[in-house]
Amino acid sequence: MNQSAEILCIGTELLIGDIVNTNAAYLARRLAEMGIPVYHQTVVGDNPERLRAALQIAFSRAEIVITTGGLGPTYDDLSKETVASFFGRKLVMDDASLKAIRSFFARMNRPVSGNNEKQAMMPENCTIFPNPNGTAPGCAIEGDGDMEGKIAILLPGPPREMKPMFDESAAPFLERLSGQTLVSHSLHFFGIGESDLESRLHEMMTKSINPTVAPYAKTGEVLVRVTARVHKKEEAAALIDPVVEEIRASVGEFLYGIDVGDLQTALVRLCQAKGLTVAAAESCTGGMVAERITSVPGASEVFEWGVCSYSVRTKQELLGVDAGLLAEHGAVSAETAAAMASRARALSGADIAVAVTGNAGPDPSEGKPVGLVYAAVDSAWHSEVLTLNLSRRDEDARAYIRTVASSHALNLALQTARRKP
Amino acid sequence: MNQSAEILCIGTELLIGDIVNTNAAYLARRLAEMGIPVYHQTVVGDNPERLRAALQIAFSRAEIVITTGGLGPTYDDLSKETVASFFGRKLVMDDASLKAIRSFFARMNRPVSGNNEKQAMMPENCTIFPNPNGTAPGCAIEGDGDMEGKIAILLPGPPREMKPMFDESAAPFLERLSGQTLVSHSLHFFGIGESDLESRLHEMMTKSINPTVAPYAKTGEVLVRVTARVHKKEEAAALIDPVVEEIRASVGEFLYGIDVGDLQTALVRLCQAKGLTVAAAESCTGGMVAERITSVPGASEVFEWGVCSYSVRTKQELLGVDAGLLAEHGAVSAETAAAMASRARALSGADIAVAVTGNAGPDPSEGKPVGLVYAAVDSAWHSEVLTLNLSRRDEDARAYIRTVASSHALNLALQTARRKP
Repeated sequence: MNQSAEILCIGTELLIGDIVNTNAAYLARRLAEMGIPVYHQTVVGDNPERLRAALQIAFSRAEIVITTGGLGPTYDDLSKETVASFFGRKLVMDDASLKAIRSFFARMNRPVSGNNEKQAMMPENCTIFPNPNGTAPGCAIEGDGDMEGKIAILLPGPPREMKPMFDESAAPFLERLSGQTLVSHSLHFFGIGESDLESRLHEMMTKSINPTVAPYAKTGEVLVRVTARVHKKEEAAALIDPVVEEIRASVGEFLYGIDVGDLQTALVRLCQAKGLTVAAAESCTGGMVAERITSVPGASEVFEWGVCSYSVRTKQELLGVDAGLLAEHGAVSAETAAAMASRARALSGADIAVAVTGNAGPDPSEGKPVGLVYAAVDSAWHSEVLTLNLSRRDEDARAYIRTVASSHALNLALQTARRKP
Repeated sequence: MNQSAEILCIGTELLIGDIVNTNAAYLARRLAEMGIPVYHQTVVGDNPERLRAALQIAFSRAEIVITTGGLGPTYDDLSKETVASFFGRKLVMDDASLKAIRSFFARMNRPVSGNNEKQAMMPENCTIFPNPNGTAPGCAIEGDGDMEGKIAILLPGPPREMKPMFDESAAPFLERLSGQTLVSHSLHFFGIGESDLESRLHEMMTKSINPTVAPYAKTGEVLVRVTARVHKKEEAAALIDPVVEEIRASVGEFLYGIDVGDLQTALVRLCQAKGLTVAAAESCTGGMVAERITSVPGASEVFEWGVCSYSVRTKQELLGVDAGLLAEHGAVSAETAAAMASRARALSGADIAVAVTGNAGPDPSEGKPVGLVYAAVDSAWHSEVLTLNLSRRDEDARAYIRTVASSHALNLALQTARRKP
């Protein structure tokens, strides 16, 4: 269908930054999945005049307006009244909603206030959405007269009430209007910058309408979303697959996974599939590699052993790195990284061990510049040491260097797991 | 000043719900602190026509429009071009920005693409905001002619670039307009919930106008910002100090620092001051305690040694926890947590050792429920084991449990360092 929707979130707490607007992101994602285009999101306070003006603007550029918030029992919750009058509808008591509100309070052993009973006053001839998680019902108002073809969907503000109401009531209501759905795949790249990747995919991104091809930068990575709009999910592959193959042909060497989430999830899943275990010895990343791996549910099958050897002494005592090697090459060196990885593999008995040593700053150490990092991998079938220069002079440099360094270590482990015969 | 501002976030990734709009919440909070009213937030995609229309609407209801996003190097980043033409300004090459971009890439040993040099094209006679954390400079455009009195502030989309640019460049620019300046202090609390703290500070928060007292919940902690609006910074202390003392009198036992950043920074700074060292042995937090400590510049003076013993075998082999104790009490037990901490202290020679063991989920292990975590601290002068029930039934439970468990371990180390005679 070619109806578009606007998300209109109502609440002064959003305007003063008391809460983050997760409702807008949730609705945007769900509407995208349903193939309903959204070109605008708006936030206004609990103010009838400004809400009325916002409705005027929203319906001038969209057929469907989905509101969140302002359905509560207090005097400043005026969304229902304002939207209903915008559609020229009166509010009438809905007995089913009144019963639901009374039994909700009965379940909580609390008396029903008049304010709460007011929540059962609904716009005349609307579609009512019950609220099993709270007292405020939602509804859909289909316009008539000069509002013909316009639809307002009113949802409560609290996410734990809004999300289930959208999924259980509003989405089915919209599905009847929408003949289309979106199918989207995420291509995960590591080792190529966003602008570099974009310039290599530029022609495809501009010419590709269905599916669309859009890059998103993450710290040290790039995500490319390929999204097709179809009538049946089964039709998507025919549109998407050739585009993915074209992308693979152009920048495939940087593609580490499709719909895989992130590097650590890709690593854990591959190691689970191949029955491989991983260990980590970390200096400048200080536990970040281990933390990222163990953030993945199921990591315990893959990861048993990690050490954070932050000092030269610890590299010797805890890891058993040769003191002479440390003295000769220094803690920040390719030789030390390789030794840390091989010692970690020997001590842990893991199939693959990665190690990171470097200078995350803020100051040079051993005369090694900030951002100089060595990442090593050791296994029975492949060993490798990377020299990275991640230097960056800002107060976030340390976090950036550690994050990107740990990503390189995870990628080394992932590529090594791939090579496993 | 009585000028109002509108927040206009630009990015298709927001419209399709790929990311949550944390920029809007951050800007809303900072503008509220500065006393600049915000009545509308809007989100539009990377589309010049719709952006132009959104600017028309925004400037019809606000004097200041603050945009985020669309300053990137890719073909669909058109915010600067669109806003500049809306103000009737051409884009001209800014040599300082070009130099900054080139040296940014030089530091990263990456070639500068033409796309990136395009980022140095800025609106003529604007105030340029440097971007130490990325390649896209921001700017402020003060309107003339029929745009007289209108101000556009352009900020980049990535929060780690946008937030510092707002604080270091945009906020001072806005303060010059208002003739006022803000002095803000952050009071960091751990071990008390937001609603509990709010109810205990409720009267003060409502009666306090200058300074304002506002709580913000972080995962497992609460931050209270005390913000005074003054004409000279020197005037702030007289307003702020009595309020801080009043807060201290009410909830002081949960206050772990003022303007200290976070638990790990408070721990590292105190240990530096007292000449103490810390070690960590982690199971369910999987390196998060070590990672958080070593995220603090200067951590190397305090932290040398950490182990991630994710399996029973590793707890025995790497830490030397007694096999009989593990067999009797299980890996998730107060006894194991205490043994991990004392073994970590013995092996590392650190003054203070912390340990965490528990079940972060998703499934019960050893019949121990998800969210059951033991955190232990060991030192010559104080030892303690905490039993935590962090259960939470949603898809973020694992991350929540690991974060709060690591916070408890850091707080144990911090309180133990405080007790050092």
